[in-house]
Amino acid sequence: MSSMILSGHDRPLESGEILPSLPEEGEVFVRLHAAALNKRDYWITKGMYPGITYPLVLGSDGAGIVDGRDVIINPSIHWGDDPEYFATDFTILGLPAHGTFSDLVKVPEENLFDKPAHLSWVEAAALPVCGVTAYRAMFTRGRARSGERMLITGIGGGVATMALLFGVALEMEVWVTSSSDQKIARAIQYGAKGGVMYSAPDWEKELVSKAGGKFDLVIDGAGGKDFSKMTQFMSPRGRIVIYGGTSGNIEDLSPQRIFWKQLDILGSTMGSPEDFSRMIDFVAINKIKPIVSHVFPLEKVNDAMEIIARNEQFGKVCLEIPQP
Amino acid sequence: MSSMILSGHDRPLESGEILPSLPEEGEVFVRLHAAALNKRDYWITKGMYPGITYPLVLGSDGAGIVDGRDVIINPSIHWGDDPEYFATDFTILGLPAHGTFSDLVKVPEENLFDKPAHLSWVEAAALPVCGVTAYRAMFTRGRARSGERMLITGIGGGVATMALLFGVALEMEVWVTSSSDQKIARAIQYGAKGGVMYSAPDWEKELVSKAGGKFDLVIDGAGGKDFSKMTQFMSPRGRIVIYGGTSGNIEDLSPQRIFWKQLDILGSTMGSPEDFSRMIDFVAINKIKPIVSHVFPLEKVNDAMEIIARNEQFGKVCLEIPQP
Repeated sequence: MSSMILSGHDRPLESGEILPSLPEEGEVFVRLHAAALNKRDYWITKGMYPGITYPLVLGSDGAGIVDGRDVIINPSIHWGDDPEYFATDFTILGLPAHGTFSDLVKVPEENLFDKPAHLSWVEAAALPVCGVTAYRAMFTRGRARSGERMLITGIGGGVATMALLFGVALEMEVWVTSSSDQKIARAIQYGAKGGVMYSAPDWEKELVSKAGGKFDLVIDGAGGKDFSKMTQFMSPRGRIVIYGGTSGNIEDLSPQRIFWKQLDILGSTMGSPEDFSRMIDFVAINKIKPIVSHVFPLEKVNDAMEIIARNEQFGKVCLEIPQP
Repeated sequence: MSSMILSGHDRPLESGEILPSLPEEGEVFVRLHAAALNKRDYWITKGMYPGITYPLVLGSDGAGIVDGRDVIINPSIHWGDDPEYFATDFTILGLPAHGTFSDLVKVPEENLFDKPAHLSWVEAAALPVCGVTAYRAMFTRGRARSGERMLITGIGGGVATMALLFGVALEMEVWVTSSSDQKIARAIQYGAKGGVMYSAPDWEKELVSKAGGKFDLVIDGAGGKDFSKMTQFMSPRGRIVIYGGTSGNIEDLSPQRIFWKQLDILGSTMGSPEDFSRMIDFVAINKIKPIVSHVFPLEKVNDAMEIIARNEQFGKVCLEIPQP
């Protein structure tokens, strides 16, 4: 198979051929039409994950064709039988198994879902990782309800922009934070009610003043020093869902505020097969199109990786895969 | 009515007569046989609560007789219709309404529950605040299940000792922390599997080593610097329920550990009428007797308060109320 291959630590991906292993029972090859990048791919090139062996084909997101069926791939491999938590042999496509920066990828057949008809190949490839992560965070863990006020911190990344689209589709009142005025403006174009710059010293007060009330749900990928400020603007029984921690450890968190308001602080990762299936249904029923920030041909994956490295995207950075 | 009365900031309670206001519709007078103290009563004498007016009869816990019926009083006044969160006019018996350090107390009739027959008056009075708080934290919020491993931090107080009894009755494996060897030994007498001194520098490692595995549920009334250590020994999908914050704000909390393990950090307070009713049933079915640490006659309430002030109790500090 023709792939973009990582052959060592901190090196660019290089075009090459990988001889695929034979499929085991229940596995199939998908002829890929599009893929998408995640921060995880970038971190793997920097050697930041355990168990990396070379050569490796990166990529967790992909969509393509198997036996004439248009499919989207659930990248959660061997989640197992418990919807609450993944099994011990759970992995994510693209490490250790070869991923989607390739013309072919081998996956368990149970990981294939019908591509919603309203999505292009690139839009379909933009969906899996961020779609299922946002869905589990918002719905399975965060119990999002129509009419509630939701904050998404750090708008721009895949999970955050997908949560924005899901919240707007659910008729929630969605607010965002960012370090970029442009990203806030783009979020408003996609249906956010408004946003504030988290670089401002009293951003939490500005946010409550603009929103005119408290928040029922927060989807947070940052943590860090600003996290504890959020407990001030939560409604009673509010939920803060944590899916990432790019700003480091949480400090100065008041237990009194947590117990008096009976807050939930909930960790969430990628989702179960049920989460993935429900996410695809939600996207299909609501005709949601993931926000595509940039599209590159597969051979330009290193340019795409630069966008991810610098967090310049608003939505997903995707790859078109040439067909033979 | 004959009561022990707080007549000013930081003063001892003094014996005296209060002319009770007439009952409104749905209110009744309970002739009290026993009462119990909570840390809240102590903090009120120190002026640490808003809205204190003098003279005030303290006391949230009580049991007694109404029209020949033996009753235990639910101290959550006007919780409201939502089991998830209390209504805006919610109060706790003993501030602002006169409480149970008295021969009579006026409460809404809906707050009366039949006293379980296996409990003495003092044991019944020991139950309400700590029983409903422990029940909501463990069951309604923490989803405690038989066979799980539970940690109760800071054993000794009413909520912690009640959680110990509930966990043992549910056939959980219960562990405790304390700053006192004697309190750990007493917890073991009541069915705890073991415990560690939280004053030891690596108490969290010692605990995991003794317990031989990770924890599914923590009931924590402390917060503070040690809180984040607990995320290390939680099982995937573990729950940490916070009902107090005596050790101050939480520091150095890793978002990565929260999302990878999909932990729940859950605030909990006193409970809804449903929580109270289920707690009474659980106590009656399992013939649970609250741990009574000290008993004083009502007129010696200031001596009882000293025990609470110095955290010397293991279980509840109770008051016997003389009958006319």
